[in-house]
Formats: sequence, structure tokens, C-alpha cells
Amino acid sequence: MRLRNNPKANDILAAHDDMVVIDGVQYKNQWHKLFGNNHPIYIEIGMGKGDFIIENASRYPEINFIGIEKFPSVMVGAVKKIDIQDNHLPNLKLLKADAISLRDVFEKGEVNRIYLNFSDPWPKKRHTKRRLTSPAFLEVFQDILVLDGELILKTDNRSLFEYSLVSFQNFGLYFEDVCLDLHHSEGYEDNIQTEYERKFSPFGPIYQIKTRLKGDK
Amino acid sequence: MRLRNNPKANDILAAHDDMVVIDGVQYKNQWHKLFGNNHPIYIEIGMGKGDFIIENASRYPEINFIGIEKFPSVMVGAVKKIDIQDNHLPNLKLLKADAISLRDVFEKGEVNRIYLNFSDPWPKKRHTKRRLTSPAFLEVFQDILVLDGELILKTDNRSLFEYSLVSFQNFGLYFEDVCLDLHHSEGYEDNIQTEYERKFSPFGPIYQIKTRLKGDK
Ligand SMILES: C[S@@+](CC[C@H](N)C(=O)[O-])C[C@H]1O[C@@H](n2cnc3c(N)ncnc32)[C@H](O)[C@@H]1O
Ligand SMILES: C[S@@+](CC[C@H](N)C(=O)[O-])C[C@H]1O[C@@H](n2cnc3c(N)ncnc32)[C@H](O)[C@@H]1O
Repeated sequence: MRLRNNPKANDILAAHDDMVVIDGVQYKNQWHKLFGNNHPIYIEIGMGKGDFIIENASRYPEINFIGIEKFPSVMVGAVKKIDIQDNHLPNLKLLKADAISLRDVFEKGEVNRIYLNFSDPWPKKRHTKRRLTSPAFLEVFQDILVLDGELILKTDNRSLFEYSLVSFQNFGLYFEDVCLDLHHSEGYEDNIQTEYERKFSPFGPIYQIKTRLKGDK
Repeated sequence: MRLRNNPKANDILAAHDDMVVIDGVQYKNQWHKLFGNNHPIYIEIGMGKGDFIIENASRYPEINFIGIEKFPSVMVGAVKKIDIQDNHLPNLKLLKADAISLRDVFEKGEVNRIYLNFSDPWPKKRHTKRRLTSPAFLEVFQDILVLDGELILKTDNRSLFEYSLVSFQNFGLYFEDVCLDLHHSEGYEDNIQTEYERKFSPFGPIYQIKTRLKGDK
């Protein structure tokens, strides 16, 4: 599925340098300047083909969105989608980066909200450290988030969600809200679906947790 | 279902004063003496007809169990079960008490583990304070538990479980383990079912969370 060796991917991304950022390091502490405003910055880590972040950016023009993905060949999916819809949004950037090195790309407190959607579950115990909700990643996220910043996880993977609930609590994140069946609950009508969500929600519940760094705003 | 006005209930309980405790206040700080040993004390709050606590007491003779229930007419169900099975266990007591007044019955730190099984969900928002996992109850539980004491919740009620995850975290309980489908997970083969669990598990997942007062034992 992931065309990791798509040789044209880098060319396509380079041709879209109005919205695609390949070398994010240069924008560390400069994202507001790049967007040309001081609106809050929400990022999605592992955006895949971008359905969620693109729809967010259209719906919320007063927020700056950055869709982050580590594989160029996957990012191309998002770029093409935007091209086809002719939907270039001034409040949306796509950034090629790995979650673990986001401290190089964002200054302390530069990010207001982080979305993790259907992150790779890494079910084997010996791969625990690769899960985006494991402590080493949470430390990165804590560093780039503002003090009242939020981390929101959505997934259909029960084991990843069980693990994350424990990991988030043990790390000291404050729980704002937990939903154990997002598609069959009241109060979540503004939910924006991801590609994976559309594909897998018929087969079982979608879980979601909203956390904040600190308990009091 | 609950025969709250069963006039014979109190008589039946009184006739079983070897295992039934009606006035728990006299045993505050005396439970170990009553059991005649210093084994850990595990309590279930809202034991219903007692399946869970009776089976626990048979399986774990080195633990002292106390099944707590506020309605005498419900307790009678447990008493009859024990009578029929002729299964009087020295490590099991049944206590008539209301969760909110457990400070009158137990000394600080007298309890090692608390089980809440299928607690009444009180779904209406204005009844939040009646839920056994709301802050006022957690304060009681915190007081009677030892420092490394555990609080374990099991339920089929999604809303109660979602609420409790948030409430436990906000209260500062440490998460040891979360399971979002107890009957379809590995590692929970020693699960002891309750009456409600047998009845409702065919219709959806059973949720369980194990928490501890403090993070380090
Ligand atoms: C299972 S997909 C989900 C895609 C999308 N969020 C959705 O819900 O449809 C996970 C995505 O995360 C990306 N990813 C995994 N690890 C990453 C990392 N360390 N940094 C950035 N992206 C990552 C993968 O390449 C993949 O595109
Ligand atoms: C839904 S039933 C569950 C019974 C049993 N634990 C099971 O899982 O089958 C809840 C029980 O908790 C008892 N209960 C409710 N509030 C209580 C309180 N404040 N103190 C003690 N027991 C209570 C009720 O009387 C009822 O028997």
C-alpha cells in the first residue's frame, strides 16, 4: 500500500512547495510567520492521505493546520487530493517529518493541539517503544505543545487504545473526555472522519480520548 | 427486582450473624481480629447476590473478603446461596452498609483492595454525584485503602466506564491496566464473573480498569 520507493514522489512534492514543506527545520519558531498570522496551530501526526486535515482546514479557517507524514509517497496522496479538488487552503501545510524529531521543527510551545489518528498499533510487546503514545514520543509532544495544549487520539485498535489510556495517565496527561464508540454517541456530531475511520468503522467501535497537558486552563 | 420491603430479610440476616454483619461500626479497626488473622482485606461494594465475592473467597483462602451491600433484601440472596451450597467460608463476611459511610466501618488504610462490579450507572447528568466513581466516593475509598491499595472497576455500561476513566484520572489514581473487552482478551482467564456479567456479556463488551492509589508500590 505504501509506495515507499515511488521515485516521482519527491518530484511531485517539490513541485508543490507552496503547501508542502520538506525541510521543516527552517521554520522552527517561524510557523506563524509562514502562515502570516497568529492563529493557533493544530498538527496531525501521521496524516496518511490527508482527508482529516484537509477537511479541518476547510472547516476552520481561523486555525492553522499542519499535516505531518513521514513517507513522501503517502504525502503525495494528500497533495493529489488537494490538486484535484483545486482546494489550496492558506491555513494548511503538509510537512514531511518523523514524529520523533519534531523538536527540530517546532519551538517549545509552538503547537496548540496534536491529533493522532489511527496511529500504527505496533501490537508486539517488543515494539511498544514504536507506538506514538509511548513515553519517548509523549515527551516530544509535551515539549512542542503550549502549556494548555491538547493531545487527541482516535483509533479503532483496541490494544493501542488500552495501552494509550494507561500510558497517558502514567505520563500525567489530564483527561478531558473519553469516548468508547464515537460513531454511536451523542455530542460528537462534528467528528471529521479519516480514511482509516471510513474503512474500519463498520467493523467495530472507534475510540477517542482528548487530553490536555495540564488540568487547569 | 429488589425486594426492598421484604420484611423477613432482616430476620434472615440476623439468623446468620456468623457471616453477616449488620452494624459494621463496631468492627472499625477490628476486622483483622474478626477474621482471626492478618491477611489482606478485599471488599466488593454493591455485591448484589454475591456470586463474585463468594467465588473469590473459595478460590483465595489467604485473602479476607467482605461483600458489601446496602439493601438487606438483596443481601439475603447471597446468604441463601451460601446456605444452599453449605459453603460457609471463614474468610468471607457480608456487610450491610452504604458506600458513602464506609469511613465509619473501616479505619484509614484497613482495606487493601476495592472491587466495584456493575455499579449502578446513574446515566442522567444531574445524578452524576450518585455514581460510585464520582469524587465524593473516591475520597471515601482513598481514606479506607492502604497507600498501595487498589480500586478495580468492571462494568458493561459504556457511559459509566467513560465517565470513570476521566474521574479516576482527574482524581489522581494510577492506572495499572485497562481492558475494553474482558471476555475477548488474553491474560484475563482468572476473571470471576458476577451475576450481571453473566447476564449482560452476550450483548456487548465488559470493560475493566485496575487502578492503584499511588504509582509506585
Ligand atoms: C495507519 S495510518 C493512518 C493514516 C490516517 N491518519 C488515517 O487515519 O487514515 C498511519 C500513518 O502514520 C504515518 N506514520 C507512522 N509513523 C510515523 C512517524 N513516526 N512520523 C510521522 N508519520 C508516521 C504512516 O506513514 C501512516 O501514513
Ligand atoms: C447493578 S447491581 C450489581 C450487583 C453485582 N455487583 C453484580 O455485578 O452482579 C449494583 C448493586 O450495588 C448496590 N448498591 C448501589 N449503591 C450502593 C451503595 N451506595 N452502597 C452499597 N451498595 C450499593 C445495589 O443495591 C445493587 O445490589
